[in-house]
Amino acid sequence: MAKCIFNFGAGPAMLPKPVMEQIQSEFLDYKGMGISVVELNHRTDAFEEILQGAKGLLREMVGIPEEYRIVWSHGGGGMQFSSVPLNLMGLHPEQKALYCNTGFFSTRSIDEAGKFGTVKVITSSEDTGFDRIPELTSEMVDPDAGYLHITTNNTMMGTRYADFPAGMPIPMVGDVTSEFLSRPIDLTRFGMIYAGAQKNLGPSGITVIIIREDLLNHYLPQIARQINYTVLDEKDSMPSTPNVFGIYCNYLVLQWTKALGGPEGMRKLNEAKSALIYGVIDGSEFFRGHAQKGSRSIQNYTFDLPSEDLVEKFIVESGAEGLYAIKRPMTGKGLRASLYNAMPLEGAETLASFMEEFERRHG
Amino acid sequence: MAKCIFNFGAGPAMLPKPVMEQIQSEFLDYKGMGISVVELNHRTDAFEEILQGAKGLLREMVGIPEEYRIVWSHGGGGMQFSSVPLNLMGLHPEQKALYCNTGFFSTRSIDEAGKFGTVKVITSSEDTGFDRIPELTSEMVDPDAGYLHITTNNTMMGTRYADFPAGMPIPMVGDVTSEFLSRPIDLTRFGMIYAGAQKNLGPSGITVIIIREDLLNHYLPQIARQINYTVLDEKDSMPSTPNVFGIYCNYLVLQWTKALGGPEGMRKLNEAKSALIYGVIDGSEFFRGHAQKGSRSIQNYTFDLPSEDLVEKFIVESGAEGLYAIKRPMTGKGLRASLYNAMPLEGAETLASFMEEFERRHG
Repeated sequence: MAKCIFNFGAGPAMLPKPVMEQIQSEFLDYKGMGISVVELNHRTDAFEEILQGAKGLLREMVGIPEEYRIVWSHGGGGMQFSSVPLNLMGLHPEQKALYCNTGFFSTRSIDEAGKFGTVKVITSSEDTGFDRIPELTSEMVDPDAGYLHITTNNTMMGTRYADFPAGMPIPMVGDVTSEFLSRPIDLTRFGMIYAGAQKNLGPSGITVIIIREDLLNHYLPQIARQINYTVLDEKDSMPSTPNVFGIYCNYLVLQWTKALGGPEGMRKLNEAKSALIYGVIDGSEFFRGHAQKGSRSIQNYTFDLPSEDLVEKFIVESGAEGLYAIKRPMTGKGLRASLYNAMPLEGAETLASFMEEFERRHG
Repeated sequence: MAKCIFNFGAGPAMLPKPVMEQIQSEFLDYKGMGISVVELNHRTDAFEEILQGAKGLLREMVGIPEEYRIVWSHGGGGMQFSSVPLNLMGLHPEQKALYCNTGFFSTRSIDEAGKFGTVKVITSSEDTGFDRIPELTSEMVDPDAGYLHITTNNTMMGTRYADFPAGMPIPMVGDVTSEFLSRPIDLTRFGMIYAGAQKNLGPSGITVIIIREDLLNHYLPQIARQINYTVLDEKDSMPSTPNVFGIYCNYLVLQWTKALGGPEGMRKLNEAKSALIYGVIDGSEFFRGHAQKGSRSIQNYTFDLPSEDLVEKFIVESGAEGLYAIKRPMTGKGLRASLYNAMPLEGAETLASFMEEFERRHG
């Protein structure tokens, strides 16, 4: 395999170079303590500083009002597909919840929630291969349910909600995993959001959850203690040993994000990258974008080519030029490249040029 | 705080120096790929090599027969307090299980299991402050239950089972978290064992589970997909993104463990350390060991001093000499020092000398 020049992996994803260098430089001796951060006991001032530092930066950059709590849970977004219903189905006396189906991970979250209550899917774009975000307004939401779950950015489909409806009659829960911190969001439109770390926060293995405090204490009786948001909040993310290295990495990535202008700075950067990639797709008959224009992600780019043979060639040739991990998504259809916050503009320029060159060669 | 010379933390714990150095040296460029291992996609040959390599070493060193499966789960041992009953209560038509209570974490596992079935505690050493492992024989085990759970080493109490009874009428499940790989065990005495990584395997955040295949497929219907051992086995620990960095660290620590003679090599090293520390305790009226002699751990050492004031002094003075994280366990009683596999003999010598010197000064 050629040495990677830019990593377009969907997650675990590329992390900011300065963060990686800092982790390496202090790996054997964290702040002069003579131990590694991975050997650091979690019940210490040094870890407390990391945890509270990360929470403070999240609160500031995401604009988290006081009545929302921040906790970390072990596992990725997939764990939350179960944790959300186990924690929130109790919001409705008959354990009813509403879901919007916008792709692979939405479908998984729906399947999983069905184990713990009654799930009604109120919108779906399955009929058109999940190429768009179907309309969602507050009028469409039956207030006779505990919560509404949406997947704000669909990693596999390359789609995202352009914006979020206001005035929902029930709390809206957003799986923001693959777009967290990629643009500003108005958190007050949500009762809760969650983000697996392995896109814009750090290595895989943990998830950050931001939840309005009135949604706590509605968990089902048969919930595992470690995934109970109420317990996680009471114990400040430490009902037992947390993922110390993961939270430390999140803290460093959050510092880097802030230095680059926070979610608003990231939005500008991501939209600049986006203009380059979608520019190539829109200016070509050769590349066929999967997502409809109003639903396009600025993190995950999905497109197809005129033949399966060309898809295969694209994978091999991009890999040979050090454009790592551009491949078929798990749906098997076409290609996907992910350009998260850590991807510099130069990475998008390089990919756009490669696409144009590929079309010249094979178009 | 003085710079740490030896880390006696209970977990996250000290990791082997050569492993830490290897992680640091290849952190920015894993095997010449041009990316960090934390940026490595899990559906790649490179990660497959890590995962299968780690499984192979476990199988070899623990002596895992073919009919046992190896999987990793997100979270620590605490997650397993729920995962075990959710996965195994179905072994009995009325969801009955037996537990032995030998301390803080046993008690937690019992409380948690009670949410998912009927739990009967068949032995307990609570009456003597968990200072011993009560007798356990196959005759004491009512076969009218799905499984029996024991905590083989009690981190907080400094006790461990000297050996494990044979001929159990129902599968025995062992929480081996704080003693995994510290000595050879006969796995065939267990239906399943589990070990949170943050003692003898790597950083906190994941747990390895070794389970006999006939115990799969007995999960309760309302189990989260991500903690279902049957799904974890079918998906080879990847029902979604695994903790790539964690499994990579486990692989390196397993290689280091093998190079030092595996569990048998570790037993010799741990017993040598143990002779030093218990030697001081037994030769003194000043230090009072918590664990009864037949039940002593060779990983966690618990002892008390004649006064609370001396306990406080011990914490401060040991810390000032770079003996890091010797402190009160969460039970609040006395002191605890943990000397896991990665602690060299020199660390035990240094602690033993410090204890003797402390007694001379304050005894």
